[in-house]
Amino acid sequence: MIKRISLLGSTGSIGQNTLEVVRQHRERFEIVGLAAGSNVDEMIRQVEEFQPKIVSMATKEAADQVRQSVSGSTRITYGNEGLEEVATHVDAVFVVSAIVGSRGLPATLAAIRAGKTIGLANKETLVMGGSIVMKEAERAGVDILPIDSEHSAIFQCLQGERLDSVKRLILTASGGAFRDWTREQLAKATREEALNHPNWSMGEKITIDSATMMNKGLEVIEAHWLFGLPYDQIDVVIHPESIVHSLVEYHDGALLAELGTPDMKVPIQYALSWPERLPLSTPSLDLAMLGSLHFRPPDFERFPCLKMAYEAGRTGGTTPTVLNAANEEAVARFLAGGVSFLAIEEIIAEVLSRHTNHPDPSLEDLYEADRWAREMAKQCRIYAV
Amino acid sequence: MIKRISLLGSTGSIGQNTLEVVRQHRERFEIVGLAAGSNVDEMIRQVEEFQPKIVSMATKEAADQVRQSVSGSTRITYGNEGLEEVATHVDAVFVVSAIVGSRGLPATLAAIRAGKTIGLANKETLVMGGSIVMKEAERAGVDILPIDSEHSAIFQCLQGERLDSVKRLILTASGGAFRDWTREQLAKATREEALNHPNWSMGEKITIDSATMMNKGLEVIEAHWLFGLPYDQIDVVIHPESIVHSLVEYHDGALLAELGTPDMKVPIQYALSWPERLPLSTPSLDLAMLGSLHFRPPDFERFPCLKMAYEAGRTGGTTPTVLNAANEEAVARFLAGGVSFLAIEEIIAEVLSRHTNHPDPSLEDLYEADRWAREMAKQCRIYAV
Repeated sequence: MIKRISLLGSTGSIGQNTLEVVRQHRERFEIVGLAAGSNVDEMIRQVEEFQPKIVSMATKEAADQVRQSVSGSTRITYGNEGLEEVATHVDAVFVVSAIVGSRGLPATLAAIRAGKTIGLANKETLVMGGSIVMKEAERAGVDILPIDSEHSAIFQCLQGERLDSVKRLILTASGGAFRDWTREQLAKATREEALNHPNWSMGEKITIDSATMMNKGLEVIEAHWLFGLPYDQIDVVIHPESIVHSLVEYHDGALLAELGTPDMKVPIQYALSWPERLPLSTPSLDLAMLGSLHFRPPDFERFPCLKMAYEAGRTGGTTPTVLNAANEEAVARFLAGGVSFLAIEEIIAEVLSRHTNHPDPSLEDLYEADRWAREMAKQCRIYAV
Repeated sequence: MIKRISLLGSTGSIGQNTLEVVRQHRERFEIVGLAAGSNVDEMIRQVEEFQPKIVSMATKEAADQVRQSVSGSTRITYGNEGLEEVATHVDAVFVVSAIVGSRGLPATLAAIRAGKTIGLANKETLVMGGSIVMKEAERAGVDILPIDSEHSAIFQCLQGERLDSVKRLILTASGGAFRDWTREQLAKATREEALNHPNWSMGEKITIDSATMMNKGLEVIEAHWLFGLPYDQIDVVIHPESIVHSLVEYHDGALLAELGTPDMKVPIQYALSWPERLPLSTPSLDLAMLGSLHFRPPDFERFPCLKMAYEAGRTGGTTPTVLNAANEEAVARFLAGGVSFLAIEEIIAEVLSRHTNHPDPSLEDLYEADRWAREMAKQCRIYAV
């Protein structure tokens, strides 16, 4: 049976890898809808290749440009409304949520309410709105399947197992571009140095998050919601080679791990094909050739973003939303060249310190906390400049 | 519900670990029968602690000694008949087959025919009689669950997965006591050096098999039968730390691995509790403290026993039986001090070269091949002395 898919964030790294998976399995997958931001040229190519029923771009202008260049019967729309239209299209049974940042949340929620199975690459959906999203998913009887490599690894290691046998989840972290840097070196880190990730080719925002280790912090919060385990049962281990994508330790002492060459197509396809596995042409992992795998404990002193994320997760309520929003704005300021690398953590800490937590927030409370934190993060004075 | 167990080989390493698992879960497991060879003192302790309904020793003399020293209503018997009585006792639903060597086959077959679930630690059962054993198990609707660490790891990695998605099984091998020895050094290896296994504390026969790597070869054949995959899909990788107990590679490029501290109680308990996992007090694996894991390809030139095992497995018929029997006798000759370490491989090669394969043997043919190979292995002249 063909699985019909809407893909939110189709021109990004996850989006393009998703399309490559669809390309390898035309007999199993079909694209119903595509949504992207402003990459008009790539969207035009995608529309011509996949002939979706609906497409949405971030702005009317971008949508007009796409419309002028494509033939066929694809409906081209735009904005948040357009995005939700793609996310809830009646023909789609599966929605890949791969829009970076907090814009992903409302679209993912709309897809959940429409009963779509979710392939989740957008961390912010669960970091911002975990309690509400998981509640809505349960109510709608919808599966949320992880498609980033760490959570997919854990999900794979949980197949055929009972959650109450789990002792802890162990997320591996490459350590990012600055794994071995001292605080003194970090103080002078440039934009280019931060964007130089050792193992994965990803978007700019997530690569900076990897360098601050906020990425792993957001993943810890995401794991908490996806798998329903307390933070005491979610650990992080530094694993520079990014070969072991994560592990699950069971209460009998056994650990299951998922390993592979770093290729996002593997977790993407697993979410699309689950509970089956389909063949995928990807280089085989040769452990003997690799020779060795390394592990070390995370350093919460050098990378306080990871520590802040654990604390925000444990606090719950609106605090993870504030953490995430402050981080997005701080990273944007760093990428724009306005502030230093260490200012990112300083901005987040400053915004968190001024926040009054709302322990049981509504969706509106979350959006309000998000808005407030962004405003604060844009304004706040920092000393690390 | 309490699972009632007969334990064949109760005084050996696997047997004692099995009893420790039972001790930790009295609410779940109960011992119905125990069988052992000649370790009278240990058996007396076990009878007093576990109060089994039936016990069998290898000889009448040993059985008499046990009988004189135990109180209670345990029936004490002996010999192959006694062993089969323990294996087929009406109260047992689960039989742990942990007798070392080819004596395990008939008892395991009897248990299968009696409809017992099998926890298999006895490699020779499948190496000698794989085709017949698996056929009988299918006919009786009986599960054969591995309880050595490698096959248990593979079995754990296969939970919730489909066998037709498997690309290959990867058995890890510590490399044994002589992992880094040259052929020149191997020629002078002593009994004591061969018995000095780096990671696992096991019986003498299996420790020597580990040093020759025949142990891994027998495991390859066992994996072929247990999981029904051709030899081209079963690989071996040297992994000195014995932390990764084995892996499964799927056709989408993902590998699942089971890891842990070397503790036989983990795979034993997994077989007993499957498909559940029960808590087990065993040291937690700390990857960060461990620091690194190493892998390298197996060396078929330095360790021809591994190569011979693959070839014997591929040939099938009576050849794996002959390989196994010749190996048992060759190891016995080495342990008795009669021949050198390299004579083991020479004896096996010599016996194999004289064997005419029977491609579709009956059980009687297998026993006959076993007898023939033992005779040959005892007699044959070797040059490595």
